[in-house]
Amino acid sequence: MNGEKNCKTLSAPVFPLIDVKGTVTDFMVWSELSREALGALRDDAAAQLDALRAENLHLDLTRGKPGLAQLDLSSGMLGVITSAEDCISESSLDCRNYGVLDGIPEAKRLFSDLLGIPEERIFIGGNSSLNLMFDTVVRCMLFGVAGGHEPWGRQGRIKFICPSPGYDRHFAICRALGIEMIPVEMTKEGPDMKAVRAHVCTDPSVKGIWCVPKFSNPEGVTYSDRVVEELASLKPAAPDFRIFWDNAYAVHELYDEHVHLADIFAAAEDNGNIDNVFYFASTSKITFPGSGVAIMAASETNLRHIKPILATQTIGFDKINQMRHVKYFGSADGIRAHMRRHADILRPKFETVLSVFERELGGCGIAEWTHPRGGYFISLNTMDDCARRVYKMAKSLGVALTEAGATFPYGCDPRDRNLRIAPSYPELSELETATHVVCQCIRLVSAEALMERA
Amino acid sequence: MNGEKNCKTLSAPVFPLIDVKGTVTDFMVWSELSREALGALRDDAAAQLDALRAENLHLDLTRGKPGLAQLDLSSGMLGVITSAEDCISESSLDCRNYGVLDGIPEAKRLFSDLLGIPEERIFIGGNSSLNLMFDTVVRCMLFGVAGGHEPWGRQGRIKFICPSPGYDRHFAICRALGIEMIPVEMTKEGPDMKAVRAHVCTDPSVKGIWCVPKFSNPEGVTYSDRVVEELASLKPAAPDFRIFWDNAYAVHELYDEHVHLADIFAAAEDNGNIDNVFYFASTSKITFPGSGVAIMAASETNLRHIKPILATQTIGFDKINQMRHVKYFGSADGIRAHMRRHADILRPKFETVLSVFERELGGCGIAEWTHPRGGYFISLNTMDDCARRVYKMAKSLGVALTEAGATFPYGCDPRDRNLRIAPSYPELSELETATHVVCQCIRLVSAEALMERA
Repeated sequence: MNGEKNCKTLSAPVFPLIDVKGTVTDFMVWSELSREALGALRDDAAAQLDALRAENLHLDLTRGKPGLAQLDLSSGMLGVITSAEDCISESSLDCRNYGVLDGIPEAKRLFSDLLGIPEERIFIGGNSSLNLMFDTVVRCMLFGVAGGHEPWGRQGRIKFICPSPGYDRHFAICRALGIEMIPVEMTKEGPDMKAVRAHVCTDPSVKGIWCVPKFSNPEGVTYSDRVVEELASLKPAAPDFRIFWDNAYAVHELYDEHVHLADIFAAAEDNGNIDNVFYFASTSKITFPGSGVAIMAASETNLRHIKPILATQTIGFDKINQMRHVKYFGSADGIRAHMRRHADILRPKFETVLSVFERELGGCGIAEWTHPRGGYFISLNTMDDCARRVYKMAKSLGVALTEAGATFPYGCDPRDRNLRIAPSYPELSELETATHVVCQCIRLVSAEALMERA
Repeated sequence: MNGEKNCKTLSAPVFPLIDVKGTVTDFMVWSELSREALGALRDDAAAQLDALRAENLHLDLTRGKPGLAQLDLSSGMLGVITSAEDCISESSLDCRNYGVLDGIPEAKRLFSDLLGIPEERIFIGGNSSLNLMFDTVVRCMLFGVAGGHEPWGRQGRIKFICPSPGYDRHFAICRALGIEMIPVEMTKEGPDMKAVRAHVCTDPSVKGIWCVPKFSNPEGVTYSDRVVEELASLKPAAPDFRIFWDNAYAVHELYDEHVHLADIFAAAEDNGNIDNVFYFASTSKITFPGSGVAIMAASETNLRHIKPILATQTIGFDKINQMRHVKYFGSADGIRAHMRRHADILRPKFETVLSVFERELGGCGIAEWTHPRGGYFISLNTMDDCARRVYKMAKSLGVALTEAGATFPYGCDPRDRNLRIAPSYPELSELETATHVVCQCIRLVSAEALMERA
């Protein structure tokens, strides 16, 4: 059995998670149980799952998809633009017509205030920051980056650093474009910078790194000031290296607090590296996924390179929707207040999952999970070599999880242990049931794994 | 003087225009006038332009940009979606949330009915068909077309056929991506198919052709059934050749009539060539430029190839805006009725330009122009080697025209004679003044050119 060797590592503190649960408390750690005791635990879990199977569940914990109550928070935005007058920008531009490639000024200001980025670095795109990121990598492949470098696509094999576990859609972009992915472990402060430097500073074929710097997907890690500074001060071997700074959860705190993230542009500027940063954000999880507004921010040099290409791609993005956002929120503070209402809806969902985890898995030494302060995910690690079995078993019981392995480049979790839990979409009662199913699957698979090993 | 030789060709019928004006009527053709008479005409035009210069004009005939009254036609669309209920698709999908890559079913049906394309061939994109076209060429460059062919970007020098005069933004895409452009003359039925075949059927580096098949930009030509059939039955030397069918003006008649365009998909299917067609359209000039809905249509084989790449690029497009269009129009007939209101606004603008042309240039043999039945442009040819001078002179008088040459690949009009007039944006009185300026510039430049030649 494959898992045997790796399962032994389980009682040691496990690397990528911040809040290690599953350490010995008043419960017996399963790895110390007899074969008979494990058999009883396995039978108990199997019985519970049999009962759950009869319920014909169809529950979904796969995606960071806002729930209905969250969508309703923004319904008022639908009605803020109803007339021609509502479409006139402060620059006198009629948002209904052609004109302005990079966004209306009041929308730039709104994002500037919200994210602390100078307006002149921002351009406002369509409805999807993923689309802006894909297009940015594609531009680099076909046109290179600013400064007259050869297009990435003509430089032979190129590579991206992929802090892992990470966002599967970032990895999918690399995979589609044939960019080799180098996994680098996540620490509780962000990517392992020693490993990052070892690649970026020595290998000119390393062209980029994916970062979700605040409430990272899936672990909820916010990069420490030290990590931001070290990223900003990198001396890449490649002159055309770029940091893809996907600040997807910039204002997505779950609790009434402000979680600090250092200013990457300021740090990069201090280090003479401002051109290294491509910054992305969106309102997909502020207003409506699919009908939000996405932005990219970059240095003057980068924007001067990008805009003529962008102007070949499109005449402009949806300015009426930009105005809709501006009018609905009024200010960055308006968005912050709105995000507290999101948090009020999301927090109980996260806490429900966590309390079921604690109740059914706590103290057993068979799983550990994060306690995020923001973002959209809880990251759970099973014992090594168990995640795929848990994923499949939950699926057979009608509970869809993000596929095991998806949080790693090439879908390959080297220890087969990470599961990404997305609590946002289901209602509380469904969430409780779904989490219960996941926990019982973990108990069953873990008991079997330990019995095989014994 | 460069123009001398070419100007001699002027009295012969000129090739690319449909409705040749400027043939001898009851006026004296200028080429037969004495040097003294030409001098008097020149002085008269110069005096008129001096008077116009004093008016400090700022008029713009550059772009196919709808006027204010046209935008107001669609203002009602802004208010059709105001609540969560309005966002529920007939498929029960909540348009506010993630989900559905290729468009909501009712929007597909609307475009299917409007354009006569089976729903299953349609996917609905963002706000810009130009963006869909750019992305499509980029996909071909990086991923190739369906069927496992080498990406265009790895095949060395590749080429596109560019019927000319044509749409400058099509040419800009080729130029940005380093695709060589082969100009092919437009006839009154569409591209010169003999020339098209000579390239497409013999040269495997020819990968595409740009077509605006109905009310072409700038000449307003609608491809004849014969031309559509010949395009559909092409046997390209390249197995990965594609027709970029930009049906931008599919329902943009200026008069109360239906101008027939043959069904490219049906014709291609009959010829076993359905995979050769990439079809594009949008509502940019139906509802709001920049806040409309764009579509692409393609064969099942092509869509099967495209969709996974698209799914890497984005989670989905703005479905609320799709729903806004569906609810506002109700049906394809709703759009057709709406387009008659656009025509009522546009027709007097076109007729104003044409009547000034007729009054000030008619019968002189110094210019010819189109009498379009739809679309957004009037195409005007000066005598050879005069367009750039007219463009500059009009500019110096405060009347902006699309830059001379822009309607040809590389901005190079071999006879320097084509000017694209966009009558849609200015108010009628401004349009009359702007056209008057253009006409007097043409008269002045033509008189001088003929005097140089004499």
